[in-house]
Amino acid sequence: MKELINKHIKSLKSGELSGEEFLAFLEHLPYSDMGDIKLDFHRTLRRGVPEAIYGSGKTVEQLEKIVRRFSELGDDILITRIDAGKYEALSEGCKEFSLKYHEKARVVTFDKESPVRFKGSVLVVSAGSSDEPVAEEAYVCSCYLGNKTDKAYDVGVACLSRVLDLKDRFNKYSVIIVVAGMEGALPSVVAGLTSTPVIAVPTSIGYGANFGGLSALLSMLNTCSGGISVVNIDNGFGAAYQASLINQKISQMML
Amino acid sequence: MKELINKHIKSLKSGELSGEEFLAFLEHLPYSDMGDIKLDFHRTLRRGVPEAIYGSGKTVEQLEKIVRRFSELGDDILITRIDAGKYEALSEGCKEFSLKYHEKARVVTFDKESPVRFKGSVLVVSAGSSDEPVAEEAYVCSCYLGNKTDKAYDVGVACLSRVLDLKDRFNKYSVIIVVAGMEGALPSVVAGLTSTPVIAVPTSIGYGANFGGLSALLSMLNTCSGGISVVNIDNGFGAAYQASLINQKISQMML
Amino acid sequence: MKELINKHIKSLKSGELSGEEFLAFLEHLPYSDMGDIKLDFHRTLRRGVPEAIYGSGKTVEQLEKIVRRFSELGDDILITRIDAGKYEALSEGCKEFSLKYHEKARVVTFDKESPVRFKGSVLVVSAGSSDEPVAEEAYVCSCYLGNKTDKAYDVGVACLSRVLDLKDRFNKYSVIIVVAGMEGALPSVVAGLTSTPVIAVPTSIGYGANFGGLSALLSMLNTCSGGISVVNIDNGFGAAYQASLINQKISQMML
Amino acid sequence: MKELINKHIKSLKSGELSGEEFLAFLEHLPYSDMGDIKLDFHRTLRRGVPEAIYGSGKTVEQLEKIVRRFSELGDDILITRIDAGKYEALSEGCKEFSLKYHEKARVVTFDKESPVRFKGSVLVVSAGSSDEPVAEEAYVCSCYLGNKTDKAYDVGVACLSRVLDLKDRFNKYSVIIVVAGMEGALPSVVAGLTSTPVIAVPTSIGYGANFGGLSALLSMLNTCSGGISVVNIDNGFGAAYQASLINQKISQMML
Amino acid sequence: MKELINKHIKSLKSGELSGEEFLAFLEHLPYSDMGDIKLDFHRTLRRGVPEAIYGSGKTVEQLEKIVRRFSELGDDILITRIDAGKYEALSEGCKEFSLKYHEKARVVTFDKESPVRFKGSVLVVSAGSSDEPVAEEAYVCSCYLGNKTDKAYDVGVACLSRVLDLKDRFNKYSVIIVVAGMEGALPSVVAGLTSTPVIAVPTSIGYGANFGGLSALLSMLNTCSGGISVVNIDNGFGAAYQASLINQKISQMML
Amino acid sequence: MKELINKHIKSLKSGELSGEEFLAFLEHLPYSDMGDIKLDFHRTLRRGVPEAIYGSGKTVEQLEKIVRRFSELGDDILITRIDAGKYEALSEGCKEFSLKYHEKARVVTFDKESPVRFKGSVLVVSAGSSDEPVAEEAYVCSCYLGNKTDKAYDVGVACLSRVLDLKDRFNKYSVIIVVAGMEGALPSVVAGLTSTPVIAVPTSIGYGANFGGLSALLSMLNTCSGGISVVNIDNGFGAAYQASLINQKISQMML
Amino acid sequence: MKELINKHIKSLKSGELSGEEFLAFLEHLPYSDMGDIKLDFHRTLRRGVPEAIYGSGKTVEQLEKIVRRFSELGDDILITRIDAGKYEALSEGCKEFSLKYHEKARVVTFDKESPVRFKGSVLVVSAGSSDEPVAEEAYVCSCYLGNKTDKAYDVGVACLSRVLDLKDRFNKYSVIIVVAGMEGALPSVVAGLTSTPVIAVPTSIGYGANFGGLSALLSMLNTCSGGISVVNIDNGFGAAYQASLINQKISQMML
Amino acid sequence: MKELINKHIKSLKSGELSGEEFLAFLEHLPYSDMGDIKLDFHRTLRRGVPEAIYGSGKTVEQLEKIVRRFSELGDDILITRIDAGKYEALSEGCKEFSLKYHEKARVVTFDKESPVRFKGSVLVVSAGSSDEPVAEEAYVCSCYLGNKTDKAYDVGVACLSRVLDLKDRFNKYSVIIVVAGMEGALPSVVAGLTSTPVIAVPTSIGYGANFGGLSALLSMLNTCSGGISVVNIDNGFGAAYQASLINQKISQMML
Repeated sequence: MKELINKHIKSLKSGELSGEEFLAFLEHLPYSDMGDIKLDFHRTLRRGVPEAIYGSGKTVEQLEKIVRRFSELGDDILITRIDAGKYEALSEGCKEFSLKYHEKARVVTFDKESPVRFKGSVLVVSAGSSDEPVAEEAYVCSCYLGNKTDKAYDVGVACLSRVLDLKDRFNKYSVIIVVAGMEGALPSVVAGLTSTPVIAVPTSIGYGANFGGLSALLSMLNTCSGGISVVNIDNGFGAAYQASLINQKISQMML
Repeated sequence: MKELINKHIKSLKSGELSGEEFLAFLEHLPYSDMGDIKLDFHRTLRRGVPEAIYGSGKTVEQLEKIVRRFSELGDDILITRIDAGKYEALSEGCKEFSLKYHEKARVVTFDKESPVRFKGSVLVVSAGSSDEPVAEEAYVCSCYLGNKTDKAYDVGVACLSRVLDLKDRFNKYSVIIVVAGMEGALPSVVAGLTSTPVIAVPTSIGYGANFGGLSALLSMLNTCSGGISVVNIDNGFGAAYQASLINQKISQMML
Repeated sequence: MKELINKHIKSLKSGELSGEEFLAFLEHLPYSDMGDIKLDFHRTLRRGVPEAIYGSGKTVEQLEKIVRRFSELGDDILITRIDAGKYEALSEGCKEFSLKYHEKARVVTFDKESPVRFKGSVLVVSAGSSDEPVAEEAYVCSCYLGNKTDKAYDVGVACLSRVLDLKDRFNKYSVIIVVAGMEGALPSVVAGLTSTPVIAVPTSIGYGANFGGLSALLSMLNTCSGGISVVNIDNGFGAAYQASLINQKISQMML
Repeated sequence: MKELINKHIKSLKSGELSGEEFLAFLEHLPYSDMGDIKLDFHRTLRRGVPEAIYGSGKTVEQLEKIVRRFSELGDDILITRIDAGKYEALSEGCKEFSLKYHEKARVVTFDKESPVRFKGSVLVVSAGSSDEPVAEEAYVCSCYLGNKTDKAYDVGVACLSRVLDLKDRFNKYSVIIVVAGMEGALPSVVAGLTSTPVIAVPTSIGYGANFGGLSALLSMLNTCSGGISVVNIDNGFGAAYQASLINQKISQMML
Repeated sequence: MKELINKHIKSLKSGELSGEEFLAFLEHLPYSDMGDIKLDFHRTLRRGVPEAIYGSGKTVEQLEKIVRRFSELGDDILITRIDAGKYEALSEGCKEFSLKYHEKARVVTFDKESPVRFKGSVLVVSAGSSDEPVAEEAYVCSCYLGNKTDKAYDVGVACLSRVLDLKDRFNKYSVIIVVAGMEGALPSVVAGLTSTPVIAVPTSIGYGANFGGLSALLSMLNTCSGGISVVNIDNGFGAAYQASLINQKISQMML
Repeated sequence: MKELINKHIKSLKSGELSGEEFLAFLEHLPYSDMGDIKLDFHRTLRRGVPEAIYGSGKTVEQLEKIVRRFSELGDDILITRIDAGKYEALSEGCKEFSLKYHEKARVVTFDKESPVRFKGSVLVVSAGSSDEPVAEEAYVCSCYLGNKTDKAYDVGVACLSRVLDLKDRFNKYSVIIVVAGMEGALPSVVAGLTSTPVIAVPTSIGYGANFGGLSALLSMLNTCSGGISVVNIDNGFGAAYQASLINQKISQMML
Repeated sequence: MKELINKHIKSLKSGELSGEEFLAFLEHLPYSDMGDIKLDFHRTLRRGVPEAIYGSGKTVEQLEKIVRRFSELGDDILITRIDAGKYEALSEGCKEFSLKYHEKARVVTFDKESPVRFKGSVLVVSAGSSDEPVAEEAYVCSCYLGNKTDKAYDVGVACLSRVLDLKDRFNKYSVIIVVAGMEGALPSVVAGLTSTPVIAVPTSIGYGANFGGLSALLSMLNTCSGGISVVNIDNGFGAAYQASLINQKISQMML
Repeated sequence: MKELINKHIKSLKSGELSGEEFLAFLEHLPYSDMGDIKLDFHRTLRRGVPEAIYGSGKTVEQLEKIVRRFSELGDDILITRIDAGKYEALSEGCKEFSLKYHEKARVVTFDKESPVRFKGSVLVVSAGSSDEPVAEEAYVCSCYLGNKTDKAYDVGVACLSRVLDLKDRFNKYSVIIVVAGMEGALPSVVAGLTSTPVIAVPTSIGYGANFGGLSALLSMLNTCSGGISVVNIDNGFGAAYQASLINQKISQMML
């Protein structure tokens, strides 16, 4: 963007651009105004990673429009939080595109392999089998965003031998995403066993005094292990995105 | 108590006791009415363990009266939640008794050894050095109530090797009391390593989104490990009391 | 497990086992890796009681796989939190096994009597008729886990004579599980009448300022009666499991 | 008030009062405007019971002014929530009045007997000795407001025989105020034993997951016993005031 | 009950009753044990008002059994919190009884007039039209329990003239039940205008930061007007029950 | 109203009105009593803006009655929070009126243009596309209440250029309504860029630790920017109403 | 600011300014960088009202530096939330300036009259005498920011006649600030009586289930009266600031 | 550690180590048992960064012992959350060591420069001047742990130009720590402007409905910007530690 602005400043000084045109340029930054939805293609430029669409609050019609627009622009797409029924309706209206539904993760992408774009790699660890949907969201999104990604599920602290078995592998990854509900103790244990930074994802899995994931969230924030930072409850995508920025930074610095 | 009642029923039938006397007996069950405080000596009969005095809400004068009364009755005494200053004032007024202040535990007893009354034994485990006051309350109370008691402090999950070192000893105890603040993950890990029942005590230690121990409390309630039950935040005495009832039951059944 | 390790150490020293094989042994601890679900058969060894399956977060397909695996291994099974519809689907796919649905408890077992494995016995007490599903979960699980178990339902504090009628029986049990919703006062009253340890289960029964069982949970944690520890809201299984560990400990010590 | 208005309407019609005077009358309803404090003497007319002063948020100077004004008007006074230090300062500045400090209740009145003004009577019951300050506030205020009032303290549910001893007396009162902290179970038990309406006062006594009296408050709101209504945490005065209105109503209807 | 016990004591002394029979008598206090449901007919004796059935947590089969039992005993019945569908099913199975469904109140009674049993009368006031179901529950229950009952709905504080119009009538009642959701301000305003005791019922009506009635509940507990006590959110029955005990007490004292 | 009262006072003095008639006048203030619903036409006089009907808690029958009454009186109507199905039923029963359903806003009006009644104008800004329903409620209501209203949607803080593009327009409006869910940061940013007062509307949009809009609500209340006041979660109507009162005041003062 | 930018664009085109100088200009927008504190003098330009200093989190040294800087720039100053002790220390170090301490409001200004800068006027209404500090903060700040401001204190809803007396004056103001703690009902009542927009300030005054002002805050957000928006608990300054923006807008539009 | 274990396995096989010695080795993992405090020197090996001491819950005596031990071992030291008074006492007892007190950060280190150990660098950004203590804790700890660290304070969103000025520098850092209280909006804005990963630290700064930092915490968890993960309220150290692990990982991968 800086070069773009410098170019426009030069044009302004040379007279190629009038003052009005310069102001207009500032007004027409590269996002796509689709009526009430403004797609931020600009973000790809700014952040280095493509925008994802949060599917939960949008109608099938809105999602169709978005798929078409991304396709026209030759961009990849990632729609999160979309249940099977909604996907059915969407794929019906988007037959000319080859979409893929990642069922456990409840995520839609175009049906093609995502290239590995970054150095560094991600391990997604989950505590219980019920945490799998959130772990899968993190896994699918991490792959899509360009990370080499592995997974190790159902290794909660009630049976320590399962997580101790993984111990030697932890340091090989550049980021570990730990997904856990209920008491949310797994990130503390994992972080205590490795020097790799841990991103913790509390899940809303549980019952009783779980309060929709609050118990796991508070555990993770109050961890006595260093090296853990936390994203929102059930936010597998957010953890994958943060991991991607770290790996992107590593890649940039290794150039 | 049942025999007592049977004895009275017999006396009533035999005419030794009038109907009025029988009613009066029901009214004068064995608690000691000291004006506004009613000491429940009866509880010792009913529960098998002596009453403890919660020191926090009482004045020095009330505590003095209670110490005297217990002493007259030849009973032991246990006063919890009493800070150093209050103890100073109390011991000043109770010079004829030899009181002992357990400083870290903030507990007062008579200065004499408590005999081991039960089969079975208790291990008090704590997560961090800041949890020590609550762990000590559990330890001192457990000894006082008649349990053979050991302790293993500062073995939190951030450094798993510390708790794994203890693993082989866990099964030797009949009850394990686990005291932990912050994310409260230690009981889940301990319970996963042993077949001994675990009583978990959340502590109010921590800061930020700890909310006075709520994070540890919710963790312990939401544990994915079986075999854990929980007492109130900072309630070291309550855990010791529950452990004592279990050990008393064991002792009764071994007769 | 200790013997197993000692055996392997000996084999390692004698040359029967190479260093690699020793490491592999550590990696292949006895849990069953069924893809994303890792069944912890090891727990039976470690804890003395069989693993239970939390049915709520699992698909019918996952449950079928688990039933088959347990059956192959000759193990008993206990699946909790499974509603009538899900059970229909599961039993359809598991026709070769004789499953039993405990309807009120919403629990599935193989259709056979569970043997009494422990000395000591359990009494399940409930406050209101609406608390019955949770009380039944505790009752069925307690029987399955090997405890002689009785029940006394609908004896809430609004009508004290009901609970006073039970008073003389309380001391005969080694553990009392008290299930209560609304104001959750019953455990305090029961514990005040007996020397048997009480495990309290708050239920989410109620309305208004009940907040999904929070009122009962807070009551039980703040009890003025000693000898009460608490499990999560609606967690009948957890109470039964804790009772089993206590009874198992009693049985071990009586040997 | 209705007669007063009717009188003024008549005066207006007869010409004794001008329209302006009539408007002025509406503006000068009988409260006493002392600058920033407006004493509502009118309330005595409206409610039948004298106004009480909430001492906690007021300076000694404000309280002095109020005492003087009440004294001039020949009215009785009741100041609640005033600690010993503040009372010292107040009595220093009010030497010409004979004030009385009810220490446990932290209440100030003129030093004279309050006459019994109502039929019906009040019993103040408290659960633990720590609840006594709130119970005393209820007791002193109830006496001051004109009720014949008795008390029965320290009869919590951990020792049921204490409350069962009181059972026969409960029906003799027209209102029972039950003060309890911690798990707040006492009102449910008392209401289950009597046909007298119960006003429950939760106290902030307790620790851990007590949350300043929230546990007791929720218990009382969620009671399974009918016939209980609740006032704010620690609001002994509020319970006494409500009891007074009930007794006043009884007295009016008995005329 | 006291006479009953005295009679038995006499029989015991005279030898008419053996010790065992005396104990049996204590065990068979007058509640009806219908398997898992124990109907507390005893309560009518103790409290002076008939038991109500909370319909929400019970099956149609349980309710049918209860209706039959009440009918056999010649007792009236009141079932609360029963929706239209459940009532359909119930009335289908109870065709021989003439039941009546109070639709807005979601309450079932036998289809006959309830006699006025008490002196004193009740006014049910509601704030908004959405609070009507709770107000109707209070109204129908209050009539059923034997109170002369009036109603004044939709008189919230946003339009003060509506409540001021009612002002003169307030003092004519012995109890006023005020039902309000949202900000719950109406009880404070009503209580400020009358000397009649007010029982406040917060409703769960509202949206946003209403938290299921918490906003109204907290308002009512924190009222600056004296003479208000509060029952649980949406608990119209509870308010009517409390009002009945007050009116019953008035009636007893007027004898 | 003041003149009306003055007129009646004069009539009273002149004898045209008796005292009884004067009292009756006070009782018959202009609201319309439709049984349980009391429409406050008076409010239009008092507040200058017409009453809106909160559709959520009302039956189709109640809404039909209200539409008819408003129509008879020649008044406009605004019904909020009415979903598509309910509107279908309502329009079926109100065929003789030409109603209009604003689908996104879930609002019903008569199908006619609302005249601009005030000086000043309103801009409705929303953060994300999921906030649109609440923003539309604000927009439709603001137009209906008589404000010239513009909108700028989907300009959240994740892409600052979108909101910076609007910056120059902000000062042109007399009120800006900012609608935002999730972290609710947009009002702080907007208010920092303009001297126009901002009314913030938190929405319940989000997931995880969003707690039904609590996160956005707390953000807005804790803003570090001056010039923001807040209405309830999702309360688009409330923001539009407040904006209307401000614009009405401006209009009155410009006369 | 727009002109300033236009001027710089012209200079850039004419060659008076180099590209580097243009970038530097963008970097040196008019705030004053005092090391760690950056005073936003720019805000006065942007918002039309001077910046206020939040005194609570700042040391006396920081406040002294700020006072000096404001004085050098010839600007007025307003420091909020500064207690008497801190003011003593500050005035000691700022002897050359004539500061004024508004004691009840805990606010510091220079000791001079603030000129009325806006058309429109503000009325500050408070519910109880304990709410006065917050009301005074609103009053002093409103005067300082340039509003003609009146006050009416201690007019809570427990005694309606006090607020009804004020009714006729309400419409004369352009903004009414209503300050209330406890049940926070006063804004609903005031807004129901006037067409002037109401800004509600909840206070943390109260006890018991008040939760630091939460009860009043929730009441105000859930108001059934239109025309109310809310600022943070105890935020008298925030209400005054919002009122000033409204009055400034009125003044601008009246030009 | 792996080599250490391999070495011991070899020794065991070769007979240099007995089975008992091998078990003992497992028991004596390298932490330092100082009675009740167990220093985890092992962590440095495991995590690559030195242990920090949380000073808040420890006595001066405990801290002295720790300082001595670290000094003996030639290790650096970092003690957080230690106020000025405690530091005075500590430095008194540790005169032979040259300690340094970082006053704003409330952190103690040895008085020497920390070498830069990692590639990559950290920027600490804070929103308001009151957030400075937490930002300084992050800054001092980040330097100590081996990161090149810059700071940019007091750039909150109320004045966007301050943060926009920093925009071009954001991408130069490998991690940005953003510290903010009140509405906590700054991380969302910063993350929207850069591709560098952001670690957000909510602070407890604020008042009213701030709830000790909860408002900022919820904002940060609910951010609509990707690339943000969150640590506990006020946990500047935790953010610095997480940043260090990321920079350490970058450094390892660049080798």
